[in-house]
Order: sequence, then structure tokens, then C-alpha cells
Amino acid sequence: MIDLVKNLASVNRRTKASVIRELLKMTSRPGMISFAGGMPDPDCFPNAELAEIFSDILKHNSKSALQYGSTEGTAELKGEILKYLQREEGITAKPENILVTTASQQALDLVSKAFIDPADPVIVEVPSYLGALQVFASYGAKMYGIPCDDDGMRTDLLEKQLAHLKKEEEHYKFIYSVTDFQNPAGVTLSEERRRKFVSMAKKYKALIIEDLPYRQVRFEGKNAPTLYKLDSDGNVISLFTFSKTMVPGFRLGYILAHEDIIARLGILKQTTDLCTGAFQQLVAAEFMRRGMLNKHIAKVCKVYKSKRDVMLAALKKYMPEGVEWTSPQGGLFLWVRLPANMDADTMFPRALDNKVAYVIGSAFHHDGSGKNTMRLNFSYPTHEQIEEGIHRLADVIKKEMCAATRSCL
Amino acid sequence: MIDLVKNLASVNRRTKASVIRELLKMTSRPGMISFAGGMPDPDCFPNAELAEIFSDILKHNSKSALQYGSTEGTAELKGEILKYLQREEGITAKPENILVTTASQQALDLVSKAFIDPADPVIVEVPSYLGALQVFASYGAKMYGIPCDDDGMRTDLLEKQLAHLKKEEEHYKFIYSVTDFQNPAGVTLSEERRRKFVSMAKKYKALIIEDLPYRQVRFEGKNAPTLYKLDSDGNVISLFTFSKTMVPGFRLGYILAHEDIIARLGILKQTTDLCTGAFQQLVAAEFMRRGMLNKHIAKVCKVYKSKRDVMLAALKKYMPEGVEWTSPQGGLFLWVRLPANMDADTMFPRALDNKVAYVIGSAFHHDGSGKNTMRLNFSYPTHEQIEEGIHRLADVIKKEMCAATRSCL
Repeated sequence: MIDLVKNLASVNRRTKASVIRELLKMTSRPGMISFAGGMPDPDCFPNAELAEIFSDILKHNSKSALQYGSTEGTAELKGEILKYLQREEGITAKPENILVTTASQQALDLVSKAFIDPADPVIVEVPSYLGALQVFASYGAKMYGIPCDDDGMRTDLLEKQLAHLKKEEEHYKFIYSVTDFQNPAGVTLSEERRRKFVSMAKKYKALIIEDLPYRQVRFEGKNAPTLYKLDSDGNVISLFTFSKTMVPGFRLGYILAHEDIIARLGILKQTTDLCTGAFQQLVAAEFMRRGMLNKHIAKVCKVYKSKRDVMLAALKKYMPEGVEWTSPQGGLFLWVRLPANMDADTMFPRALDNKVAYVIGSAFHHDGSGKNTMRLNFSYPTHEQIEEGIHRLADVIKKEMCAATRSCL
Repeated sequence: MIDLVKNLASVNRRTKASVIRELLKMTSRPGMISFAGGMPDPDCFPNAELAEIFSDILKHNSKSALQYGSTEGTAELKGEILKYLQREEGITAKPENILVTTASQQALDLVSKAFIDPADPVIVEVPSYLGALQVFASYGAKMYGIPCDDDGMRTDLLEKQLAHLKKEEEHYKFIYSVTDFQNPAGVTLSEERRRKFVSMAKKYKALIIEDLPYRQVRFEGKNAPTLYKLDSDGNVISLFTFSKTMVPGFRLGYILAHEDIIARLGILKQTTDLCTGAFQQLVAAEFMRRGMLNKHIAKVCKVYKSKRDVMLAALKKYMPEGVEWTSPQGGLFLWVRLPANMDADTMFPRALDNKVAYVIGSAFHHDGSGKNTMRLNFSYPTHEQIEEGIHRLADVIKKEMCAATRSCL
């Protein structure tokens, strides 16, 4: 074979295999309880509703559903999305503000392709969604991290960073934030900070990528307005997905943004996959039109809330002193912080030996820090698995603490 | 809003809107007969077979079908693909040689992302598939064109080009060819040239991208071996799609290549869309397992063959002297060559006025040449539309000839 490595493009050389992906392979061992994935609970999948819709589409609309569609998305789905945004988010938008995507990962790839040249500065949260860090890195972004606390990204530190970059005359491309029930930390940006964030974007002429995969999966409390809603300057690009509100198996999401941005992203999407499947778009449009989406979200929220509660109770029951965790009001994940001297990366093989898995927190840090943290998923495992898995994990952590302090030999 | 243009990445600035896409918008006027698209005949869609499969999947396999899948593709679909390749192409491959993609356009995007840095040389056919030219251009490729004749790419000219590039010490990345019933020209690479092509790739250490969207849609005669089959050196990357053999509405295809190449492409795919929808993969796997794919292909071939025959007869009946066209043994397109002094680009609005549409041939030329050519699609229109549309087109051409020569005033 030819010398492949010599042939690779620079974007390829920069793209690393996902740590999570490699870890997940190890978590499929028999008897393993895994908090490592980020998958919805398949027992919640709306099979009966989908069966009804599939049958109706094949009867009445197969010629459009099975054919090539337009790059921007089908009129039916866009129409339902616009109604949804108006009703649920108070956002008035036009079809030209929407680009249907092959789920949110494609949206992240398209905005990266659209805006990032090698060495371009991009601002991310610490910690941040691994899939976003990976794609930004693949396009050669120079990442600057802003720490999160329980109210999301620290906007005071963000302003300092923006002012500093401006002074350096660096032309940063965008700020990326998962604003609701963040992956991985489970925290939500407060309304006060949202307002500051949007006004800073305006002041410093920065684009904001607002990633909203979990926003609709809220168990309690009330959503703060989206950044898109608060912005009046066309600076916010919002990413939505049906992966958590319907099913992930169709790969379906959409981008909401200023029409000039959507037009550019649409041209890029055309070279990337021509269009997202018309079939799954018509399925989603019907799922919304028939009122099934909101009913399904209510069901999912009820199930995940009870799983979160089981996990919080188990953490309280089993974890030794010095271990802290977030209490998310929605989403799929919570975030565990071990004492600063501990290392969840090196502990990982011992957790696997004890048949429990998590994702190492350092994978969510653009600079590889956060070694004393881990992400736990509560949407996929059963109540019994959560109780037993947290018990196992606590045992591993306790042993690790003993070994570190030599206090319990 | 911020200054978007200042923000755009170079790949974005290089990506142009598709000519075809803009033209297609004009072809939806009432009464228009369009030979411009490239769509399968929706009357052939296998609705009954799909209804049966959808229902069975929701009953027995919904938890996998609706969940996230692996980046490389589901085991079920890969298994069926491997059996298919063995049976139909005499190719023995392993699961590690296959990457399931969101149809062939994503495959083209992934190989481009994997191998093309700005100014990298890439060799294409003249004419060549527009969607490939677009994506290569978006990554900044420097394209070299090799003319085609009735036996496909002129391998004698290819060798000269390869030798010349070698002398210049240019490091070309790959040679791109649609080997069977080429889009746009409808020609097929002869077996003799295939053998030369593969041995040249070895000699000059070049990768070959073999794009096979129409290979299975053969009306008569026998397929020559794939380049993948003829190569023993791991230099061929083959792109397959279900868009023409099942339906386009699922966006499903796959790449067959050396496992080291598949591993790199898989990592890139992960940042691009995580995975292709498991649902459509399981549908396709069942479609193959139940023997429906070959039956469906046979049906499609019968329908398209008769449409091609109607188009060939109409061309013969209506076209003035000096107009030439290809007679493809399969696929969806044929290629028309007007006398050298004519311009199908400038004629296009007059064709629209006469309610008939084609794609200008220059769109398929990397250097914008080929102004006297056009692509006609015969899979989508009905027999009656083909007959009437060719009649209309011939009238436009005749008028244009008169105007050019002033001989019939």
C-alpha cells in the first residue's frame, strides 16, 4: 500500500480517536454496570407511535419520504419546528432561519467547517462536551477554557478572556456553551449570566454556539430564556436535536440562526451529505404534528427524574466524605468531583475490575486537566443497576483513598 | 450582526453553491419537463417490502434500531454487505474493510477531509461528477483533468499526467473515477483500462477513489471487475450507495477499503455525525437478507432500460444533424454533445422558456469548459415526458443553430 501517513491531510492528523469510544469498548464486559454512555433509555422509545406514523407515511407520502429531499430540510418538518419554537420558546422565526441536520454532531461539524481555520481562537467551557472539543480540535482551533460553577459558565471570567483576546488583537471565532443541564457537568446557565453573555457577545463581536440537546428534558423548575431569544443582533447559533426527545436512531436535529448564517451552512451541508433523510424528517414532523413529542418528553422526564433521584440517594448513602457531585434539574448526567489529590484516570481500570464504569472527567477538559472528576450517566441503567453500581464505585473510591493516604492499612 | 465574511473559514470561502441546485429551483415551474435532476423513479419505490420490514423491526428489534449505533456501522448491515460483495463481486472482505456512511456524498466528504490539504493535486475525469468536484474544491484541491471517451477515462493520458506530476515532484493525493455508467457522461471504463489504471496506481503510488453509485443498475451486458477487485495493493477506496438500489430517502451507503484507511475514516466520521442512523441500517440489512435488493434492482433496471430506449429513440427522431449522444448500458444519465460552436449555458434560459430543462455540461468540468455539452436524466420522467421533452429540446437546439449560422432566416 502507499504511504498512508504521508498522504493524510492535516485535519486528519489532528483528529484523535475518542477516549470515550475506546473506553466504551471495555464497558461491554459481562456483569458490568456502566454509567459511561450517554444513551436514552430504550424502554421509553415510542414504538407504538412510530409504527402508526411509518404506516401512514408509506400509505400517503412515500414518494417524498423515500426520495432525495432539499438540503435545508423538508417544508413539513420546518413548519412544525417553527410552531414549536413559537409555542415553547417564544421565538418567532422563518423557514430561512432553520437548517435540518444529521443530528447535532453534524451541526457542530458544519459550524466548525464554516468558521474555524487552523489556530483560530475558540472559547469553550471547562468542562465541555467531548464531541465538540474533538471537532474543534480537528479543524485546528486554539481553545481557551472558561470554568463553570453551579450556575454554568463564569461570565465574569469570560469577559476577562474576551477583553484579553481583544487586546491581543486575536480574532476569536465563537464561544461554545451547552447552556442547559450541561454535558458533562449537569449545570445550567443562570438567567442573569445569559443576559450578560449575550451583551458581551455583542460588545466583543463574538458569535455564540448555543448547544441545546437536553433543554427539553427538564424534570423540575423552569427554563431560562435561550440565548437566541435574548439576542437581538443575529449573533447566536442554536443547535437542537431529536436524539433525546424522540429517538437517536434517526440522526436528526436542526440549527436555528440568522438567515445569512443558515445560507452559508446550507451550502456546506450540500457538499457534506446533500441532505438529511426525508423519511426521518417526515416521521419527526408527524410526531410533532400529532402532539406526540410533548407527551413523549413528559414520559422521558418522569423516568429520568426517578433515575436521577435513585442516583443522588445512592451517592449520599455510599460515597465517602470528600466526594462531591452536582444535582441536575434535567438532562442525562451528573458530575462527580473527587478530592483534588485523586486521579479518576488511573482509577479507571480498578473500577472496571469492580465491574463499574464511568467516563474520566479529563476527557471533557480541552487542556487535559480535571483528573479528579468523572461523568455519570443515569438515563440508561435501571434503578437496581444505579444503586448497585454506585455502591461498587464508592468501594473503589474508598480503597483508592486508603491507598493514597495509607490511613486504613 | 458581526462581520460574517471576516469570520468565515477558508474552506467556507472556497465552497460555492451548486449550479445544479440553483438551476433545479427554476425547473419546478408548471408544465416544465425536467431532465435536470438525478432522482430515481418514485413509482419503483419498494413500499410494500419496506412496510413489512418497518413493522418487523419495531416489533423485534426497536431497542437497537432506534438507539445510537457504532460509528463504523451495525454488524447486521456489514454482514449482509460482505455476503453481497462476495456473491456479486467476488470480493472477500472483513468487517474492518467497511465503513457505513450517510450515503456517498458523506463518503466523498470523508475521503476529502482525510487526504486533501489546500493545493494538493487530485486527478478527476473530464467530465466528472459535480458533487465530487464541489467537495474537492471546498478542501482546496488543485484539480487535474483526464478526458473520457466511450471507454471511460483515457488511461494513456492518465499515465502522462502521473509521469508529469512525478517529475514535478508533486505529491498527488488520489485519482477519482465513476467507473460504471458515469455521472454525467454515462460511459463505462473498459476492462483493459481498469487493469492499466490499477497497475499505474501501484507504479505511481496513487490512491484511487472508485465511485460506484450506478454499477448495479446495468440493463444489458456484463460488469467488468471493480478496481478494488483488480488491485492487490490496498490502493483502492470504493464508494457504494443504496440511493439507486433501494431508496435515496434513508441516506445510506458504505466505503470498502483497506482496514487502515477505514480506521482513519471512521475517526473522522465520528466527529462528523457520530454514526449513521441504526434504523435505516437495519432496514437495509433486512432488505438484503430477505432477497429484496436483487429483486428491486431487477425491477429498476427494467423500468430504466425502457426509459433509456424511449430517450434514445426520441433523440434519433428529433435531434438535428451535428448533435451527438452516448448510449449508456445502465445508470440514470446520458450525455449530449452539441456542435463545438454552440453554448448550452447561454441556451439554458431559452430551453426553460420552451419548458424543458437539462444540466449544463460545463458544471461537470473542473475547469468550466464543456460549454457545448449537457446531461440528460432518463430515470425520473415518464415515457410521454421523455418523448415530448426531447422534442422541445430539439426545437430549441435547432433555433439556436439557425441563429448561430444565420442559415435559416
